[in-house]
Amino acid sequence: MSQDTPWKILLEHVEAGDPVELEHYIGTLAPSERARTFARLDREAIDRIFELISPDQAAEIIQDLSDEQGAGLIEAMNHETAADVVEMLPINDQIDILNEISSDDATQAIIANLPLKDRKEVRQLLKYEEDTAGGIMNTAVLSYPENMKVGDVLDDLRENREQYGEYDIQYVYVVDRDGCLRGVLPLRTLVWTPRDTPVGKVMKGELTMVSVDADLDELLDLFETHEFLGIPVIDRKGRLAGVALRYEVMEAVGEREADNYLKSSGIVGGEELRSMPLLVRSKRRLSWLSINILLNIAAASVIAMYQDTVSAVIALAVFLPIISDMSGCSGNQAVAVSIREITLGISKPTDIINVILKESIVGLINGTVLGILLGGVAFLWKGNFYLGLVIGGALLFNTIIAVCIGGTIPLVLQKWGKDPALASGPILTTVTDMCGFLLTLGFATSLLSLIH
Amino acid sequence: MSQDTPWKILLEHVEAGDPVELEHYIGTLAPSERARTFARLDREAIDRIFELISPDQAAEIIQDLSDEQGAGLIEAMNHETAADVVEMLPINDQIDILNEISSDDATQAIIANLPLKDRKEVRQLLKYEEDTAGGIMNTAVLSYPENMKVGDVLDDLRENREQYGEYDIQYVYVVDRDGCLRGVLPLRTLVWTPRDTPVGKVMKGELTMVSVDADLDELLDLFETHEFLGIPVIDRKGRLAGVALRYEVMEAVGEREADNYLKSSGIVGGEELRSMPLLVRSKRRLSWLSINILLNIAAASVIAMYQDTVSAVIALAVFLPIISDMSGCSGNQAVAVSIREITLGISKPTDIINVILKESIVGLINGTVLGILLGGVAFLWKGNFYLGLVIGGALLFNTIIAVCIGGTIPLVLQKWGKDPALASGPILTTVTDMCGFLLTLGFATSLLSLIH
Repeated sequence: MSQDTPWKILLEHVEAGDPVELEHYIGTLAPSERARTFARLDREAIDRIFELISPDQAAEIIQDLSDEQGAGLIEAMNHETAADVVEMLPINDQIDILNEISSDDATQAIIANLPLKDRKEVRQLLKYEEDTAGGIMNTAVLSYPENMKVGDVLDDLRENREQYGEYDIQYVYVVDRDGCLRGVLPLRTLVWTPRDTPVGKVMKGELTMVSVDADLDELLDLFETHEFLGIPVIDRKGRLAGVALRYEVMEAVGEREADNYLKSSGIVGGEELRSMPLLVRSKRRLSWLSINILLNIAAASVIAMYQDTVSAVIALAVFLPIISDMSGCSGNQAVAVSIREITLGISKPTDIINVILKESIVGLINGTVLGILLGGVAFLWKGNFYLGLVIGGALLFNTIIAVCIGGTIPLVLQKWGKDPALASGPILTTVTDMCGFLLTLGFATSLLSLIH
Repeated sequence: MSQDTPWKILLEHVEAGDPVELEHYIGTLAPSERARTFARLDREAIDRIFELISPDQAAEIIQDLSDEQGAGLIEAMNHETAADVVEMLPINDQIDILNEISSDDATQAIIANLPLKDRKEVRQLLKYEEDTAGGIMNTAVLSYPENMKVGDVLDDLRENREQYGEYDIQYVYVVDRDGCLRGVLPLRTLVWTPRDTPVGKVMKGELTMVSVDADLDELLDLFETHEFLGIPVIDRKGRLAGVALRYEVMEAVGEREADNYLKSSGIVGGEELRSMPLLVRSKRRLSWLSINILLNIAAASVIAMYQDTVSAVIALAVFLPIISDMSGCSGNQAVAVSIREITLGISKPTDIINVILKESIVGLINGTVLGILLGGVAFLWKGNFYLGLVIGGALLFNTIIAVCIGGTIPLVLQKWGKDPALASGPILTTVTDMCGFLLTLGFATSLLSLIH
């Protein structure tokens, strides 16, 4: 059995049906191995496994997986089992997982099966947008009233240390009667303060805090200017709601980057894993492809207008796809730089003219090099200097157009409140294809007698 | 002046030459505004600014910028000024910035100008690869010998609290005589332990630790299975070298994601910002484009082999770029899913057959839909059923090929130790272009009498 993959061994344990053996085997798998193994299981096997193991163990498995994969498993369970498992997760993971479940009905059904006390909190937290302070924050924070004594706080921490196990108690917060945030106390300050001092006296009162509605950029800005490991988050009434932790913010930034990449490659509507149902995957990909094919047909209709020219100089048919593809490549480089600069906060919609200036020079240099190369190939192949001139010239001009458009589209889309990562690519390739075909075939038509 | 951009106002302050006013104005800019403003300055203005302001203030500015942008500014200074500024940065930022400087000579010259005590540490830390525990770790950790008393540790923390300001002292480490890591003590444990206990008695001895050579995936795995905010890093001799912090690891993961996106769009050799010198940007982009144009010429040479067919049915020239582009789109979706699955640890090179199985069904569905669509357009346009069949059939088969190749290339590249994000795109488009042209023109040639 030594050659068997964990996936097969796991299935054997499921067949055998011994929960203890099964739990033990799953426990021996490294997290990445576990993720891989569960990704290969079908719905039936997943059902069987989660019937056998305890919700506790199930929750532990889910925590080790990515949110998307975890949500996929939860969705595959019946709602009661799902709720039992979700209940075992830390509140933050509960929210992350529930946010990833694709069917709203399923989410509501799972929440309806949670214990009453959890239900309210979960519903409240799900209201916050994913990439806001409210969506990112950790609600496991400790707060004490202003007039409480330092000694009593320390005693509370000591007595409840089991229960506070999952809390990050490097800081405790001080609140007034209405729950409004007044100050913060690092644990180390508590340690070297006389026990009978009220916490309100030693707390740090001028506090950096952030609203539940603050977006990821705002959080990132704060963490970049301050050394804090966490920033308290207050709700719309000024009450302490949670704490945004540096590492959670960094994780959210990482996810946004991953998202940019996926969207720019045409993976839309959330992350895709191959363990997801076939039709979901197919439908999501098609939604993107069908827009692209329409744009492509529109762009290629330019060629249809110039059929006579193509038919007179059939070599043009060889170069049209090259010019289309190379302009797309050049333009996409500019798109990627702009999206990155937007993410880093270096570029804003008002920089469009500056971007065009900077890109057009790069486009001129690269277009010249590429134009000479491709024009040279055309010349050498057909022995016609003017054909080389048409092909090289078209590629040069189209490269300049492509980088200027590629560099500015993301800024324009952002200004219009559209997602640059999602829409830049298709718009870019449509415009550059059209221009490329027009330039090549237009030049060729006007020089037809020379290249024929 | 209310309408003036910060960039212009900053230049006015530089002209005026008053360091206090200048420092004050820079201080009023939000970090993102600051990043944008500095991105627009030329080398001369940057020189002038850093001559005027103190290294202290300069270091603060650099810290608020991305590593790439910071490195760009440092490179623009003379080596002595650069060293003065670098010296003011926390050691971790020093390493991050020096790692981003593009010229090795410049890095060495700056290090040579650092104070002796820093020079050795910097040289040592620069030896670690960027995405390893050694490259990521924070070296500001506190360690105490096993037999030291809890009270003495607390006294040391209290007495040196100013100096330990930038340390994350939620945990202190316990080491033996050789500096080898023995255990860890959370600050909170110290607080409720009698003062005369030796730290070796209360420390947590069975410790999760990681070698300086551990890579990012290993670190991510550890942080995903454990709740730790930091994991101690030991050097090759077992001595405590630093601590890998959760948020730093998450940040590195985010950077890797951003990198994947940039590389897949043809931004290679490090991040590009438009503030970088023109020739660097142009050269880096060209290195990628020139490989692509050669691959494109190779793929398009298939069309050249079928010139007679194209010349007989000129409509084919309209559809070739569409088939090429659409297959590229479908294939790139599969590439993105595979790269994401590799990043999440769900896919490994051994999964190739599984990936092909799963992709080919998606390819069959999407290829059928797209094929009927494009074939239908061809049929309606020219009124020739067989032309529709050729175009639709070619797109169907090529979509299946594209998703299978797109899904597997990243896994194969990873197996060969190549960077999937970098090389998958060009390989994919070359193969799918060739196949697409071959299928379309091959089908057309064999049905030539029917579509002519």
